[in-house]
Amino acid sequence: MDEIAVRADVSKVTVYRHFSDKDSLFIAAVTAAIDEAELGTRSLVDGLGGSDRLERDLTVFARRHIADVTRPHLLRMRRMIIAEAQRFPDLAAAWHRAGPERAHRNLAHQLSRLAERGLLDVRDPLLAAQHLNYLILSVPVNEAMFTGRVHPFRPRQLDRWADEAVRVFLAGYAPTSRAEVAGVKRPLGPS
Amino acid sequence: MDEIAVRADVSKVTVYRHFSDKDSLFIAAVTAAIDEAELGTRSLVDGLGGSDRLERDLTVFARRHIADVTRPHLLRMRRMIIAEAQRFPDLAAAWHRAGPERAHRNLAHQLSRLAERGLLDVRDPLLAAQHLNYLILSVPVNEAMFTGRVHPFRPRQLDRWADEAVRVFLAGYAPTSRAEVAGVKRPLGPS
Repeated sequence: MDEIAVRADVSKVTVYRHFSDKDSLFIAAVTAAIDEAELGTRSLVDGLGGSDRLERDLTVFARRHIADVTRPHLLRMRRMIIAEAQRFPDLAAAWHRAGPERAHRNLAHQLSRLAERGLLDVRDPLLAAQHLNYLILSVPVNEAMFTGRVHPFRPRQLDRWADEAVRVFLAGYAPTSRAEVAGVKRPLGPS
Repeated sequence: MDEIAVRADVSKVTVYRHFSDKDSLFIAAVTAAIDEAELGTRSLVDGLGGSDRLERDLTVFARRHIADVTRPHLLRMRRMIIAEAQRFPDLAAAWHRAGPERAHRNLAHQLSRLAERGLLDVRDPLLAAQHLNYLILSVPVNEAMFTGRVHPFRPRQLDRWADEAVRVFLAGYAPTSRAEVAGVKRPLGPS
């Protein structure tokens, strides 16, 4: 709290007036960082449901999303929150609500709109949103979590992960995809 | 080291004869836990490349894989390794090599065989393996990491995640999927 007061050039009393304890200050810092990241893709997500060029618009969203979430300060924060989730469940819950939960809910809403327009076949919008999100993010985020890497990913590599995520997602939720893949009767592949 | 010697009913000298320090004992424990988990699906993965009933065999693998990886002791270990990846990079590297890296490499090999047989369209076998793995695991594993939950997932819920992961994966890597989804020219959806 001392260091924060110094850096903010205010008294410690002022810091305590805004944040009753270290925990609530910590939660506010985490939530602010996530809000800022979420703001970057908000308008892109909100536009998806009405998109007339879905592959292009999903790709624009996916490329921006992966670039946002893999920024070093957010990866560091993610690691810290996972590390402390059992000791500080309120902090982990705050991150989860402001980050993945909100992102999935907003995406799910747009995917439902696309399904209503017949552009996707989505039975479970929340799961579809999770599939899209994790197809985009899982490779770099897991690599970052387990290797302790600190240098940023190359933009071209991130774009490629984003593009392939969109490709797989669209195939998985295309209006025709279930009929084609459904068959135990019809073997996959050229028949 | 004292407690381990007591639990193993050996002298501390004996423990140190096998493990030169705490770090190497820790790495051995982590690697053993992952090896044991990996052994559970080894034969299922190895059989995929020659499968004649791909959807069924992928589903059997996916259901077993998600049940294995979400066992509480492995989720606890995952959290600890992510937490300590920067302070103990050797430990994180050992987990990464024995866990996700090996799993992705083995899966990629089988997906290549399926591609050679014309049953899948796989341009980048490693990325395809990562997509399959993360489609299966991401929802429960991320939930576990961020909520600090300790109670096991319900088997029916795990099966459902596994089944939907396989469905999306097969659609995304079906031999015909690229041509169908490729089009900026052809709008997605009923035309």
